[in-house]
This record gives sequence, C-alpha cells and structure tokens, in this order.
Amino acid sequence: MNILFCSAGRRAELLKDFRNSLPCGSRIIATDMSPYAPALYFADSHYLVPSIREEGYLERIVAICRQERVDAITTLIDPEIEVLAQNRKMFEDLGITVLAPYAETAALCFDKFQLFRHLRACGIATADTYGSYEDAVEAIRNGTLELPVFVKPRTGSGSVGARRVYDLDTLRQACEEDPSLIIQELMDCVDMDADVYIDTITHEPVSMFTKRKLETKIGGASKTVSFKDPAAVEFVRNAMKHFSFNGPIDVDLFYKNGQYYLSEINPRFGGAYLHAYGAGVDFVKLIEKNVRGIANEPCFGNYEENVVMMMYDSVVIQKIAPSEG
Amino acid sequence: MNILFCSAGRRAELLKDFRNSLPCGSRIIATDMSPYAPALYFADSHYLVPSIREEGYLERIVAICRQERVDAITTLIDPEIEVLAQNRKMFEDLGITVLAPYAETAALCFDKFQLFRHLRACGIATADTYGSYEDAVEAIRNGTLELPVFVKPRTGSGSVGARRVYDLDTLRQACEEDPSLIIQELMDCVDMDADVYIDTITHEPVSMFTKRKLETKIGGASKTVSFKDPAAVEFVRNAMKHFSFNGPIDVDLFYKNGQYYLSEINPRFGGAYLHAYGAGVDFVKLIEKNVRGIANEPCFGNYEENVVMMMYDSVVIQKIAPSEG
Repeated sequence: MNILFCSAGRRAELLKDFRNSLPCGSRIIATDMSPYAPALYFADSHYLVPSIREEGYLERIVAICRQERVDAITTLIDPEIEVLAQNRKMFEDLGITVLAPYAETAALCFDKFQLFRHLRACGIATADTYGSYEDAVEAIRNGTLELPVFVKPRTGSGSVGARRVYDLDTLRQACEEDPSLIIQELMDCVDMDADVYIDTITHEPVSMFTKRKLETKIGGASKTVSFKDPAAVEFVRNAMKHFSFNGPIDVDLFYKNGQYYLSEINPRFGGAYLHAYGAGVDFVKLIEKNVRGIANEPCFGNYEENVVMMMYDSVVIQKIAPSEG
Repeated sequence: MNILFCSAGRRAELLKDFRNSLPCGSRIIATDMSPYAPALYFADSHYLVPSIREEGYLERIVAICRQERVDAITTLIDPEIEVLAQNRKMFEDLGITVLAPYAETAALCFDKFQLFRHLRACGIATADTYGSYEDAVEAIRNGTLELPVFVKPRTGSGSVGARRVYDLDTLRQACEEDPSLIIQELMDCVDMDADVYIDTITHEPVSMFTKRKLETKIGGASKTVSFKDPAAVEFVRNAMKHFSFNGPIDVDLFYKNGQYYLSEINPRFGGAYLHAYGAGVDFVKLIEKNVRGIANEPCFGNYEENVVMMMYDSVVIQKIAPSEG
C-alpha cells in the first residue's frame, strides 16, 4: 500500500508508526510547503509543494498521486481537510481512498460554532456556546452563563487563542479584537480524548482508544493516560451516527459529574494518536485492510488502562542547501 | 563510565545520544521528582527523588551516587546548577566529576543582570541592560535606550516571560507586576547559539558547534542551521577566559553588523545540543575521556555547514500505576 501524507509538518513519529506496521513493499510519501518540515525526511519520497491556498496546488498533489501510485491520501493539518473532502470524487476516480470526512462533516468540524449547533440539534451533550459577545452577555444577564467563560477562535487549530476570560470588559475587548471568537461555559473538569477509526467501507466506528489528558501544551496533549469506560465508547459511537467520517479522527471530550460532553472533533490523526499506537491500537492495519477492500470488524477495549504517554523532543538532522530553504 | 542526570525531565533524546556514544559497560542513571518525566525511561536505572528545594534532597542524590558508583554528575535544569556547584567538593571527594560550573560562575549565569555587569566589566560585547524601570526610563530620556525594549525575568528559564515592550506605560506595569524584570535594548538581528565543551582538566574550551536559530518555541530553538565562523570561535573563546565553567555549556549569541554579542549562558547541556551531536560534535566522548583523567585537545570546526536540525514530538509509552503518579 502506498500512502500520501499531505502537509506532513512535524508528524515524523506518526510516519515511523506507519513504517512499522505497513506490509513490506509499501511506500510512504510526504509533502509540505517547507523543506524544514521534519516529517518529510521519514518518508520514502517527499515533495515540496505550494501552499494549499495557491493555484495549482491540487494539480500538483494529483500528479504526485499518479507518479507514486498512491492508494490512500490524508492530511495532517486542519485547513486542508476540506480540500480533500471537496475533491473526494476526483481522488476516488483514481482509485485512491480519501482518509478525510465527507464535505458537510468536514465543514462542521472546521467551524466550531456550527459544530455546537449541530450537536445541540442532534441531542449530543456539549458545552453551552455563544457566537457573539451580545449573545454571551444576554446569557450572563439572565443567568444561563457564568463568568469566567472560555473563549476560542471559531476555526482555530491546536489551542492557539483559547483562554479563560474572567470579566465582561476583557470579554468585550477580546470579541472586538477577534469577532470570530466563540464563548463557552467553562467546563472545569477532566479533559478526555478519543482516537476513533471510522471504517471506510462500513462507515461505522470500529476502533477506539480513550485517554485522560495529564498535561497540555500549545498544540495538544503532551502527557496522557489510557482508560476504559463502556459509557465513553457508547457516547462516542452514538455521536458518530450524526456525522460522515472516513478514517482516523480525534474526538475531544469533557467528563463532568458522570457525564461525557463532546468538545471538538479533529477529523484527522490527532497529535496524541501516538499514544494509541504505542498501546497497541493500530489504525495503520485497519487502513491497510480498508484499502484492500476489506471491512474491519468493530473491536473496542483492546488495550490496557493506566498506560501513560509522555512526549519529548526528538530531532532529525539533514543537510539542506540555503537555496532550498 | 556511569553518569547521573539529575532532573532529567524531557531530555530523553540526550540520554539516547549518551547511550549511543558511551563505551560498553557504561551505565546511565536518571532522577526526577515526577514519574511522568519521559527521560527516566531511557536510563539504565531511574529514581524518583524529592524536589531540589526539599530537605534531604542532596543526601538522596549522594546515596544514589554511592549505590550506582557514579563517575560523573550533571543536571538538566537551571535552578539545580548552583546546588551541584556549591557541593562540588563533596562530590569530588567521592571521585565524581561534577559537570557544572564553579560556584561564582554558576551564580553569575543564573542572575542575568549580574551576568550583564560582569560582561561589561570584562569588556565582552553584550546588549545594554537595565535592572529597574527607573534606570531604563532615564536611559530612554537621555537617548541611550530606545523603545521598543526587550524585557525578561532576571532568573528565568527557557524564554518564559521574555517579550518586547513598545511603550512606557506597559513597561511600568510590567515592572510593577514583576520587579525582577530586566530591561534590554532590542537586538533586532539574527539569534545564534554555541554549544561549547570546557575541558574539566585544562579548563579550556576544546569543542564548539555554532548554529543559527531558524525557529524558536517556548523553551528553546526548534529549528537551527549550522555555520562556521572563526570570528565566532574567537569571540566565545575570549569570553570563556572570564568564567569558570566545567563541562558542556550553551552560549546564546546575537550577531549584528558584523559583531557578535553575548546574550546568556546556560551552563549545562542546551536543549538544542542534539543538533551538535547529530552533526558529529560528540561531547559524550570528551566527557568520557575527562572522567578517565585524560585532557582533550582543542578541536574546532569539525562539522559541516548548512546542516539543519528540525525538532518533532516523539513519545515514550509506559505503564504507571496511579499510586506512583
């Protein structure tokens, strides 16, 4: 199986996991717009490509797919998910499995306020969310929302710009500076996270790894511990019925007073999927079977509890001529 | 050779480099106060110890040194450097090489304002620095300092709290909130960095790796590129005459209008020493020779230019019972 990782960036360790699990003869291809993207140097071939916003980007990716006989394509950055989703048919016509959600779901996950509305409409527990300063103030005045609140950019990645706000003045100022901010009730509780694999043939969740966040840095969880709870599996499986995912996703959860709440969905490999893989929950093998046209049977809870993942900095060293930089 | 890394934290990759370069039969021992310190799990033995501020800390370290027949000791966090420096004689009496500066130099490096005064007194180029809001304002009024300025905590680590300040109001507020802030002229230029090894027998610098910072995150440089410049070697070697280091250090430099300036010195393995090692500048072998009582010959420029280091997140997975956490 040949797989293309678009916008591979810093996800070198994920590519190593693929290398480790893919059958002999498989090839890993990676692209990025920067020669300083460490993951490039863990692929069998890598290509420097234009920015995803530039004209000709998609043509370049398609050319790479043809040249490398790519069987499956995915992306490791949020803004590119919709690009793949909107061009699904073109890739499928080339015989390529697109590991990205269907277009409507991709749009929902990218806009966190739309996601909130969808979750509410489907009856899935989530934090109260407001799309404007005025709506938040009204909710605070009539007692349905309390200070401090939590604000974050509507379409942000990582945890950039996400923060607590303690008073109305600061809230007004923050919303004036960035009118795209959404305002949420503060969920002062344990942050959880589920790595989920949605089979590309049955479109059902077939594998899940749940973990509690012990430490979070900009960009994601840096220390996590595995747990098992049938209620978490049930909650996520039920939520999945209301979306059209395809392949690996990362679901952020809150757990408060015995209840799970859905916070966000990153419809791609999550940064801490490395934990799931290291604990034996191998999505690579599931992808490989799907690409061969075989559906995966659902299998949950196939890992141990109290397995801790700790991130640290590793490096790749590469001679790069200044002209390439 | 048996080496003890105190407060090993996230420095897993450094321990791997040691494993790779140390002769057969050597042992790596690591301590930390948290079982969630990933580097612990790359040592041959690891120990959970109290905080360095707690009573009994030093006794515990000494007991580990005896039990593990430690030949060399170092620390990977700044606040512990003075602890090792002040107890040098006790360790040396046990036959242990202390890879940390002598006490006076350790104190100088920890307090960045004292370091500035020392550099000035020794005639070593450095950025203009002021120890109080009043002194900075006076300098601005009489035209020797310009806004924006750069402020940072006097004894900070990583780049936490270091930032540009654009106006006097903000500067006053910042200095009121943290009276330990120091105020510097803004060096709008290329940030460089030198990994230097000071021989523990001759007390001369014997190896150096210089790199330009391409990208910096909280805690240090995440992308760097090697360069060679005899003027940089000369500048750092000259500066070293005015300090008493012992072992590996990390020197932050500015380069502006053809002149090097010394910014800060971390008298321990720098976070980006991984670059030097990956490019072939092996301090482990130098340490090992020193511990065997052999002085190292000076050797500079023994690496290639345009070698790029790119950091990425790696993980270690470990079952840890909740009772240990």
